[in-house]
Amino acid sequence: MRSSFRYPSYLLKIIDCFKKLPGVGSKSAERYAFNLLDWPDSDKQAFIRALSDLKDHLSYCGDCGALIEDQCGFCTEERAASGKICVTSTPKNIFVIEETGEYFGSYHVLNSKLSPLDGVSPEDLGIDRLKERIQSLECKEVILAIDSTIEGDATCLLIKEELKDLSLDISRLAFGLPIGSSLEFVDGSTLALAFSGRKQVNH
Amino acid sequence: MRSSFRYPSYLLKIIDCFKKLPGVGSKSAERYAFNLLDWPDSDKQAFIRALSDLKDHLSYCGDCGALIEDQCGFCTEERAASGKICVTSTPKNIFVIEETGEYFGSYHVLNSKLSPLDGVSPEDLGIDRLKERIQSLECKEVILAIDSTIEGDATCLLIKEELKDLSLDISRLAFGLPIGSSLEFVDGSTLALAFSGRKQVNH
Repeated sequence: MRSSFRYPSYLLKIIDCFKKLPGVGSKSAERYAFNLLDWPDSDKQAFIRALSDLKDHLSYCGDCGALIEDQCGFCTEERAASGKICVTSTPKNIFVIEETGEYFGSYHVLNSKLSPLDGVSPEDLGIDRLKERIQSLECKEVILAIDSTIEGDATCLLIKEELKDLSLDISRLAFGLPIGSSLEFVDGSTLALAFSGRKQVNH
Repeated sequence: MRSSFRYPSYLLKIIDCFKKLPGVGSKSAERYAFNLLDWPDSDKQAFIRALSDLKDHLSYCGDCGALIEDQCGFCTEERAASGKICVTSTPKNIFVIEETGEYFGSYHVLNSKLSPLDGVSPEDLGIDRLKERIQSLECKEVILAIDSTIEGDATCLLIKEELKDLSLDISRLAFGLPIGSSLEFVDGSTLALAFSGRKQVNH
């Protein structure tokens, strides 16, 4: 058998990059790469620029953890004055919540969700930092907008436990979230219902 | 209702780029973009470089239509001497065929597959160019390695019709390809079987 031709090295490199994206395997990555070859040069250039801009201009807020361009639009005095803080497990979920228009207050993104199997222990969540923010912002109400998964349930229980000495209303998004679902895939009206029907967990 | 926050513009731009890839909708594009934010800078830089290299260094061979880096590895005298030419509908399929190790000869990539509904008429396939190449390469055998779809069938019929005046063996990959499948998703051994069991269509 003669040696057969493989993909050109430049093609292999872009395939490898695509394979790093979540849920993208070899076949999809190859499909994306070949599709990309047929893009007009201006679109390729736009893709390169979008990647550079993402690298250079997007970052996370040092206080609340939200995704920001220049300065954080969520860490404002007006929002802090509401006395509410909404705790999420990812920066993305802030945008999902904002889209419902049901909430106006501060945010706090946890570093992660409690998951001993993945090596995420209670210390890794940064609950001490959450406590500090609750006290410095003088919050009266904490809303836990966390996925209704096992890890999310454990995280909520832990936060409730850690915050029980502070005099706070702690609630958790409840009605409307289907069991086992991830927050980002719930439609806006279901999420709005979950906001208005939130349930206290510290009584 | 207060005005709600949308994604930062730099994030929207990369989401738009991802949405241009085949089979990628809004949810997947958002997922890719947020995942990308958490890549280390070196990986982001590698992605940018891979895109630039793809744009600057990959192109299609002016003769056979294969994907090439510098010069075409398929348009060689050794391959032409085999007297065989393999006709495919995409540059990608050349690599799928090379991987089987069953074929050694020239290639010819059609511009497209015949598809009147998509506005692809017989003239758009570039069969005249295929004829010229068959004559200048003095080919004795034409192998049609084209998807077993309705468009592929029509394309094969048309090529057979157009080439009938030249004294050629025209065969088409046959056994092993499941009906309605696309060539790029067939496993190597099935494709090898299809090569060895190819069937003449001009008798």
